[in-house]
Amino acid sequence: MIILDGKKLRDKILADLKIRLDAMPVKPTLAVILVGDDPASEIYVNNKQKTAQNLGINSVVLKYPAQLSENELLEKINELNNDTAVSAILVQLPLPAHIDKNKIINAICPAKDVDGLTAQNLGLLFSGQTPMVFPATPRGILLLLDEYKIEIEGKHVVVIGRSNLVGKPVSQMMLARNATVTTCHSYTKNLADITKSADIVVCAIGEKIITNSMLKSGCVVVDVGISLDSSGKVTGDVEFEGASKIASYITPVPGGVGPMTIAALMLNTVDLLAAQQV
Amino acid sequence: MIILDGKKLRDKILADLKIRLDAMPVKPTLAVILVGDDPASEIYVNNKQKTAQNLGINSVVLKYPAQLSENELLEKINELNNDTAVSAILVQLPLPAHIDKNKIINAICPAKDVDGLTAQNLGLLFSGQTPMVFPATPRGILLLLDEYKIEIEGKHVVVIGRSNLVGKPVSQMMLARNATVTTCHSYTKNLADITKSADIVVCAIGEKIITNSMLKSGCVVVDVGISLDSSGKVTGDVEFEGASKIASYITPVPGGVGPMTIAALMLNTVDLLAAQQV
Repeated sequence: MIILDGKKLRDKILADLKIRLDAMPVKPTLAVILVGDDPASEIYVNNKQKTAQNLGINSVVLKYPAQLSENELLEKINELNNDTAVSAILVQLPLPAHIDKNKIINAICPAKDVDGLTAQNLGLLFSGQTPMVFPATPRGILLLLDEYKIEIEGKHVVVIGRSNLVGKPVSQMMLARNATVTTCHSYTKNLADITKSADIVVCAIGEKIITNSMLKSGCVVVDVGISLDSSGKVTGDVEFEGASKIASYITPVPGGVGPMTIAALMLNTVDLLAAQQV
Repeated sequence: MIILDGKKLRDKILADLKIRLDAMPVKPTLAVILVGDDPASEIYVNNKQKTAQNLGINSVVLKYPAQLSENELLEKINELNNDTAVSAILVQLPLPAHIDKNKIINAICPAKDVDGLTAQNLGLLFSGQTPMVFPATPRGILLLLDEYKIEIEGKHVVVIGRSNLVGKPVSQMMLARNATVTTCHSYTKNLADITKSADIVVCAIGEKIITNSMLKSGCVVVDVGISLDSSGKVTGDVEFEGASKIASYITPVPGGVGPMTIAALMLNTVDLLAAQQV
């Protein structure tokens, strides 16, 4: 069994990216919008900002109180769309319940949509065209599988979860790489029968649901889940101990998909500026 | 075994739609662009035009020679986008090889995109938002299954084919209805093992590949394929005789999905005008 080491690959990607950035006469500017005071969101945003700054990416965090109105937020995004000094815009999710998330995301100019989540970019991805960027977590997952030369074409990939952030785009990107893809979720019956037929399992639910009896011997396990167990320890969707005895490759949590997401986000930030300069 | 009668439902939908259209003070105008002289395309376009006219939809067919340049076609679409008398635009596929299909489709204003194939509309569909319209064939398939009260939620739906016209959008629409969805294609290994686990099979390949030994007893079979067999007879992707002995419901070819596609296209045409009038 081989650990898919996301930290190691993240460090390698970021080191390469630093060289690329050092050679760029103009550096990207990433604007991150944070509404409210969700503690997890604050940690994510801080991590993104720190990583960006270490690379030489200009990072601006715009913090607003939870009471911010939808119209005020739309106006802010419009300003950032028109600000030629800003090359990338990220709206940290979740947003407060009174704000229509889709409306906000779709207001971002697709050329500055660093998460690849606007309808325009998702539509290009879905239809096999090239979006400005691919969503960060799926991009990170594919970079990690490619680093370990894990074949995707012709494999049965079972994706558990169907969010716009992870489950749906990773399903489509696997399909574009000629995998047979099954997308599962809370309504799926006989989940174990399906996962047992999988060559690659990608789990992005946020609940501990995958045990080793649900896996085929030699399969590849990608665990996107991040939650805290009863003792306050960071844990994933997969029972790692058991699964690691049956899988050929497995991502740890932490240290697997998480670091790859941030690496992919930094790649996206630089790619957007490069595309804008063409 | 029950035949999913697409002709009967088409007639019912079109009769209802005629009443709705008769009450509309302004009728929709559907502009169909046909480039080149593919005989199958001419038949499809004629059918669409005839059906539209019978309903009281204004239908204009713009025919161009195969040598038409991409820029000329883009210019034409731009004219139609700006023509307030035109409420719906359809570009008949396939286009000649020298024209970039995606570029042409994405040039259609999403509000007039009657096939629902622009990146913007596909992105809305993919991300679980509401596109202006859903692509006609998937919409037709769901209308047919709903007419026969076939449950989708929690079922395992196996879609064979991954085109932007049928396979991919029908997969997403089934997923949005809480089915577990597997998308198969030419790279899929052990196709029979997968189809045997399906509660609903949707086949959209254009090749006779589904035999009754590949199906689970009591499954629902939706055959989107249309091709001509060696004797020149219209036929689908499923061996109808055998499959009809094992399936609980099955679409015939012709008379199943084909008529539903045209009914859905007419619904889309009227829906677009209604949305433009809001």
